[in-house]
Amino acid sequence: MTKYVYFFGDGQAEGSGEMRNLLGGKGANLAEMTSIGLPVPAGFTLSTEVCTAFYANNRNYPETLKAEVAEHMRSVETLMGKRFGDRDNPLLVSVRSGGRASMPGMMDTVLNLGLNDETVQGVIQQSSDPRFAYDSYRRFIQMYANVVMGMNGDALEDILEDMKDERGVEQDTELTADDLKQLVVLFKTKVKEALGQEFPEDPHEQLWGAIGAVFGSWMNPRAVTYRRLNNIPAAWGTAVNIQSMVFGNMGDDCATGVAFTRNPSTGEHLFFGEFLVNAQGEDVVAGIRTPQPINKAGGDGSLPSMEEVMPESYAQLMKIQETLERHYRDMQDIEFTIEKGKLYMLQTRSGKRTAKASIRIAVEMEQEGLINEKEAVLRVSPEQLDQLLHPSLDPTADKTIIAKGLPASPGAACGKVVFCADEAEEEAKLGRDVILVRIETSPEDIHGMHAAQGILTARGGMTSHAAVVARGMGKCCVSGCGDIKVDYQQNQFTTRSGETIKKGDLITLDGSTGEVMLGQVPTVQPELTGDFGVLMIWVDKYRRMKVRTNADTPHDSKVAREFGAEGIGLCRTEHMFFEGDRVTAVREMILAADLEGRKTALAKILPMQKSDFLGIFREMKGLPVTIRLLDPPLHEFLPHTDAEIEELAAGLNVSMRVLKDKVDSLHEFNPMLGHRGCRLGITYPEIYDMQVQAIMEAACELVKNEGFDIVPEIMIPLVGHVKELEILRTNAVQVADEVIARYGVDVQYLIGTMIELPRAALTADEIAAQAEFFSFGTNDLTQTCFGLSRDDSGKFLPYYVEQEILPNDPFVAIDQSGVGELVRLGCEKGRQARSDIKLGICGEHGGEPSSVIFCHKIGLDYVSCSPFRVQIARLAAAHAALMDA
Amino acid sequence: MTKYVYFFGDGQAEGSGEMRNLLGGKGANLAEMTSIGLPVPAGFTLSTEVCTAFYANNRNYPETLKAEVAEHMRSVETLMGKRFGDRDNPLLVSVRSGGRASMPGMMDTVLNLGLNDETVQGVIQQSSDPRFAYDSYRRFIQMYANVVMGMNGDALEDILEDMKDERGVEQDTELTADDLKQLVVLFKTKVKEALGQEFPEDPHEQLWGAIGAVFGSWMNPRAVTYRRLNNIPAAWGTAVNIQSMVFGNMGDDCATGVAFTRNPSTGEHLFFGEFLVNAQGEDVVAGIRTPQPINKAGGDGSLPSMEEVMPESYAQLMKIQETLERHYRDMQDIEFTIEKGKLYMLQTRSGKRTAKASIRIAVEMEQEGLINEKEAVLRVSPEQLDQLLHPSLDPTADKTIIAKGLPASPGAACGKVVFCADEAEEEAKLGRDVILVRIETSPEDIHGMHAAQGILTARGGMTSHAAVVARGMGKCCVSGCGDIKVDYQQNQFTTRSGETIKKGDLITLDGSTGEVMLGQVPTVQPELTGDFGVLMIWVDKYRRMKVRTNADTPHDSKVAREFGAEGIGLCRTEHMFFEGDRVTAVREMILAADLEGRKTALAKILPMQKSDFLGIFREMKGLPVTIRLLDPPLHEFLPHTDAEIEELAAGLNVSMRVLKDKVDSLHEFNPMLGHRGCRLGITYPEIYDMQVQAIMEAACELVKNEGFDIVPEIMIPLVGHVKELEILRTNAVQVADEVIARYGVDVQYLIGTMIELPRAALTADEIAAQAEFFSFGTNDLTQTCFGLSRDDSGKFLPYYVEQEILPNDPFVAIDQSGVGELVRLGCEKGRQARSDIKLGICGEHGGEPSSVIFCHKIGLDYVSCSPFRVQIARLAAAHAALMDA
Repeated sequence: MTKYVYFFGDGQAEGSGEMRNLLGGKGANLAEMTSIGLPVPAGFTLSTEVCTAFYANNRNYPETLKAEVAEHMRSVETLMGKRFGDRDNPLLVSVRSGGRASMPGMMDTVLNLGLNDETVQGVIQQSSDPRFAYDSYRRFIQMYANVVMGMNGDALEDILEDMKDERGVEQDTELTADDLKQLVVLFKTKVKEALGQEFPEDPHEQLWGAIGAVFGSWMNPRAVTYRRLNNIPAAWGTAVNIQSMVFGNMGDDCATGVAFTRNPSTGEHLFFGEFLVNAQGEDVVAGIRTPQPINKAGGDGSLPSMEEVMPESYAQLMKIQETLERHYRDMQDIEFTIEKGKLYMLQTRSGKRTAKASIRIAVEMEQEGLINEKEAVLRVSPEQLDQLLHPSLDPTADKTIIAKGLPASPGAACGKVVFCADEAEEEAKLGRDVILVRIETSPEDIHGMHAAQGILTARGGMTSHAAVVARGMGKCCVSGCGDIKVDYQQNQFTTRSGETIKKGDLITLDGSTGEVMLGQVPTVQPELTGDFGVLMIWVDKYRRMKVRTNADTPHDSKVAREFGAEGIGLCRTEHMFFEGDRVTAVREMILAADLEGRKTALAKILPMQKSDFLGIFREMKGLPVTIRLLDPPLHEFLPHTDAEIEELAAGLNVSMRVLKDKVDSLHEFNPMLGHRGCRLGITYPEIYDMQVQAIMEAACELVKNEGFDIVPEIMIPLVGHVKELEILRTNAVQVADEVIARYGVDVQYLIGTMIELPRAALTADEIAAQAEFFSFGTNDLTQTCFGLSRDDSGKFLPYYVEQEILPNDPFVAIDQSGVGELVRLGCEKGRQARSDIKLGICGEHGGEPSSVIFCHKIGLDYVSCSPFRVQIARLAAAHAALMDA
Repeated sequence: MTKYVYFFGDGQAEGSGEMRNLLGGKGANLAEMTSIGLPVPAGFTLSTEVCTAFYANNRNYPETLKAEVAEHMRSVETLMGKRFGDRDNPLLVSVRSGGRASMPGMMDTVLNLGLNDETVQGVIQQSSDPRFAYDSYRRFIQMYANVVMGMNGDALEDILEDMKDERGVEQDTELTADDLKQLVVLFKTKVKEALGQEFPEDPHEQLWGAIGAVFGSWMNPRAVTYRRLNNIPAAWGTAVNIQSMVFGNMGDDCATGVAFTRNPSTGEHLFFGEFLVNAQGEDVVAGIRTPQPINKAGGDGSLPSMEEVMPESYAQLMKIQETLERHYRDMQDIEFTIEKGKLYMLQTRSGKRTAKASIRIAVEMEQEGLINEKEAVLRVSPEQLDQLLHPSLDPTADKTIIAKGLPASPGAACGKVVFCADEAEEEAKLGRDVILVRIETSPEDIHGMHAAQGILTARGGMTSHAAVVARGMGKCCVSGCGDIKVDYQQNQFTTRSGETIKKGDLITLDGSTGEVMLGQVPTVQPELTGDFGVLMIWVDKYRRMKVRTNADTPHDSKVAREFGAEGIGLCRTEHMFFEGDRVTAVREMILAADLEGRKTALAKILPMQKSDFLGIFREMKGLPVTIRLLDPPLHEFLPHTDAEIEELAAGLNVSMRVLKDKVDSLHEFNPMLGHRGCRLGITYPEIYDMQVQAIMEAACELVKNEGFDIVPEIMIPLVGHVKELEILRTNAVQVADEVIARYGVDVQYLIGTMIELPRAALTADEIAAQAEFFSFGTNDLTQTCFGLSRDDSGKFLPYYVEQEILPNDPFVAIDQSGVGELVRLGCEKGRQARSDIKLGICGEHGGEPSSVIFCHKIGLDYVSCSPFRVQIARLAAAHAALMDA
């Protein structure tokens, strides 16, 4: 019989920290904390297997579950000396979700469960505090009605607000026990009225209702969205933790807080957190009251810290957090509650952190001897690194600071102000940068936060919803900005100093300082030194794959080399064709009536191409450079509207008719599958001849005159049949050898091909006979393997990803079972035919971590990606190598 | 040491009929004929390995070749009692090509080799016929200068014509020995003048020149074209046969001829052929003189037959042809020469024949006990069958016969008259049907013959170039039509009765009667009974694969069933969407603003779809029918020009702007890779729901009311990821089960998918979990596997095929190593996951013989093709099964 429920309490636990997959992160850590002797309220965990069985079995529980839960509830009762549903000394419990991966705020929680009109009397007896008892009760009703019964939260909130108005008070805390008692009655009536059913009085009914709601919330839309954004499989499921309640809101000797063993924003080795006196944990996370710092060092002096207010509990907590960090060998994110002076640990988990903090913590922990270099490398996620590589504000720029909030998630962002998530999404779809401004954010805003460049909230601390989610997304966020007053009605916010910022106005956020600025402030590239430099030395030490870049200009080449690129994996010559007045010569070539005409035009392009290659070779200082010969269909170089055609006709001194006929004759129904790539090289060999000549002349000149050591890699695109490559290789060799002979120098060169068609991958053994290297063009390979035009997929691909029909956008992360299988086959067959063939990838996947790891696994020699992703790829390659070992 | 040369002569031969690959067809058969005691002039064969070595080694011969040739020449000299180059009794030889497959007229031949100013005297001595000797000499010079030395043939022909004018004679035969002797001098002078080199006098130099020319001719453009059209690999190479000359032109007791052991046009079991008295073999083939029939039965009485003129030789030949047919167990095409009353066999090979003849011969030979049923089936080539399936002239139609020629290649053809091959090709490219009219054809005309619907020649017999090539191509041809006089200058021909037919005029040919008719004559479908019926019974007995058809209407279904289709493999529902006023409802659906609007429009389409399916199910009488749900992108149903949009807007009563916006919003850059197939079903499930409902209602109605037994096969197109199919399968099952329940009948149905994307083939194991059948859509699979748009490939694909960059047009014959590999993988993975999965193909490859054979090899259950190719597919499937066994 499968065991579904795991107990923890009083130093004993059936689970452990290792059992994360089964018990979820929270459950495993509660068990682990219990085992190592930390003060954890007793409870038990329903494993993730219950969730899986629940969904596999049409939302029904395994048969044995009820009995197991009842048995464990008795154990908790025994340990706590209370009874669930007892009218004298009732046990109250929390019911919380807890998956394998953290999904903050995404899923449902119910607190104070077990309260009813009878047990509330027991709480009053035990606490001697009717106000606390009724406050807990009305909170429970609100939460349960919303979470479990599915009632809109506003209805009860309105009753609360009405009562406060009636009583003439501002804060919830100003309501009396009688007020709250009356609220309970009003709430229950409202629930009955709204839902047509009584609020359940039976604690067991409450319990199973809550368990069902938590499991059900695994599939709620915001959880589904979150999983999609964070690549969490639906199959993992969530666990449910049922734990004795402890109360941080039983008076001023009570408190609740969240903290990090190190600063999650900067990585500084300083215990860091927030707490609220006389509050429940949800109050901290929800960001409704602005919390106080946990210690003096972490605050700005405006509010007293826990270190000062509760020095004994602080000292105990300080010790516990050290124990936890040493035990877990990682920075921990902890939740605690102090009930009448007694400290309880409610949660510990590895803390989310910014990329910057991640690096600093990894490097410092290595220096402290807590972890080794390899572990340090694995601690920094390549996905997250992207944050660091974005520009930050230029420190020398003029800034008009209009407000200041908390530096909740670093980076800089600029955009037009919008006030709602849907609007943010719509504007982003139109390609506009927006800043989402909210009083506070909630899980319903996820899609808007994702779409926005940055997030600004008026309320909420460093651990508020907005802050946590934004850091997870690597998005700039300023939270708790009390300087602004948001007016949703007017679609504007006003600052303390009196400015009014309307929807559509441009503002800039600095998530590292909390500053809000008017207009657009210039940005600068991040300095990647210090801890980052140390880490990248380790990264390069442990990775096997080389990382190259995709670059078409000397400037990009330079940037990429500074980011550590070890060569160019893809230099697209057509980008050069578009530049400046070159396109005129290109058009002349296309419009030429015959070979002679084309050759005349190509002769004009030759010196320009040559100078490009000279520039790039110089920048790359002898590192390998793969140059792809002309790829796009010729019509891409011609204008398409009548007006443009007329202008060009005048410019080229040809008749409008002739030009229009040419444009029409080049029109294609499916240009993606048309007359492009090596098909151009076959039908117009003179174009490739010119390009090879330019490449080889540039190389020979540098070798001869500047002492360079260059081995150009000439890449033929879109080969589908080996014969194409055979012909073009023969042509290229002839031109190259002629140039080498003319310069009288000894220059080696390689000729290879893109593998970007399924047929090329399937016949890679034949093709390898003619290719010294393969570069997998996974952008086009994805298009052909899926039969999916990137340009046209907007009508259904987002829906596919949203509905999890595809696990990922295959243009972002390589589709391993389809496209990846072709790449794997291509490698295998290529190496069979030519054991020393050089294998790389040059699609955009080359800079996406999961794809880079895949490339390592199938044995590629290098990945090539855009300059700004080179470091991400280096780190991902190191991860791959370390995970492999 | 490799043996390169094989001797034959006087009943002994080093080679045999089995050694076709090594010695070529001609060489193997000369060896075989020699071995079985037939009178064959002695000679030897340079094997195809010499050709391969020659091209592999930059056109150099193997080192040992010269010595081997010399040695074998000595054996021939000994046997013939003559010496090569001897001034008294010289041996003259022919040098001929001979590949593994026959390539009539494609390659070079030199006759009378060994003649020079000295040896001609020896020939005079031996023959006592100076006129014959000088005629042979001048023929040799003409042939050698043209074939070996590369001189334009016209220059020497002009000298000959000038001399005939001077002498006032019309025929070559009227020139005297002195005239011819003078011609030799004039020819040699002209050669020197034109080429700047002497005509070679040394017989050994002549010999090696001719050998080189034959090997060289393997790569001449017309041979390359022929191989491409006939799927002969270049790697096979040709052999060279060097054989003692015998002369059919030494007087009236000499003759030369070609014959078939049965009629190659009708298949009738009657010795059939032509001969010319006092002529060389080339004269018969070239069609310059109209030859006499070989026997009375084969002629029309206008010319005396060989049976009458040379009864003894005829009797000997009659016996030999019987021996040959029994020996080879196949109809033979033989060449013979009678030199001063003595019969020599120069060649035997399996005779080319029309499809009709092929079938009759196979069936009759089986009845004669010469071959068995399986062999009979293998004797009829599926490619050729196509000929039979084309329409012939309606026998009841009015015809204006303007001329009559020889029925050289059966079938009927109609088109505009053109007089040159290039023009034929150009017109055909524009989609126009043409009839190529020539005085006679030559290998230079091949491309025009290929492009034309039919060929009409004024000169040449049943074995002339035009006739042989046309039969090989399965094209209608009327040859030797002396009724017409062709005037290339005026671009017209005139008939004996005085009509003038100009370029562009419409004529009709009947290749089975030799009739030439004015205008277009209506055609009828062929009757496929008699021998054909017998053969097809054997075909069905020996094949394993089923043959289905692609049909979208009751009419097509009926036609296909009559052709033996065993079900429908592809019923395209979108064709129904276009019909009549249905497209209006479809457009209404597309333009609907919301789901409700779409459902309203779909409700109008439902009864129409249902009636289609009723009709098709009724015609197919319970045979399986696979129905593909909507596949094309929705924009295909909307108009595109402004005028059409305006008209439609008025018709639908919507604004032009709204309609144009919709058309624009549906525009796709690459519709082939766009929002189509199951992607429509995912985003607009209501469309597929309607279609499934229509299918199932039709099936249930027939089962319930008409006692049918129907298992509809519902096919989801363009699946790339199993999840798509999972969702659409769930929807379809729900709709289908609802219909079944509503009708209260027990109807089974299958749900499956097209495998037409590389990703689907690669993940076929996953997909098979959701599919009861796969149908490989190899049209789209070819497009995506090659990255090749069928609509756009016209700019380079013909060039690719012409240049042999691709061995075949991959849209015609399946590309086995790329696309085929995906199909193979898909089958393997599909069966792994679901052992009883039904596997078929429904691309156009399903009716192309080499593709059908491939489908058999990889284990498909059926192929599906257009109705008119069903019989071809049946035969090909039988070939596959028999070759397999």
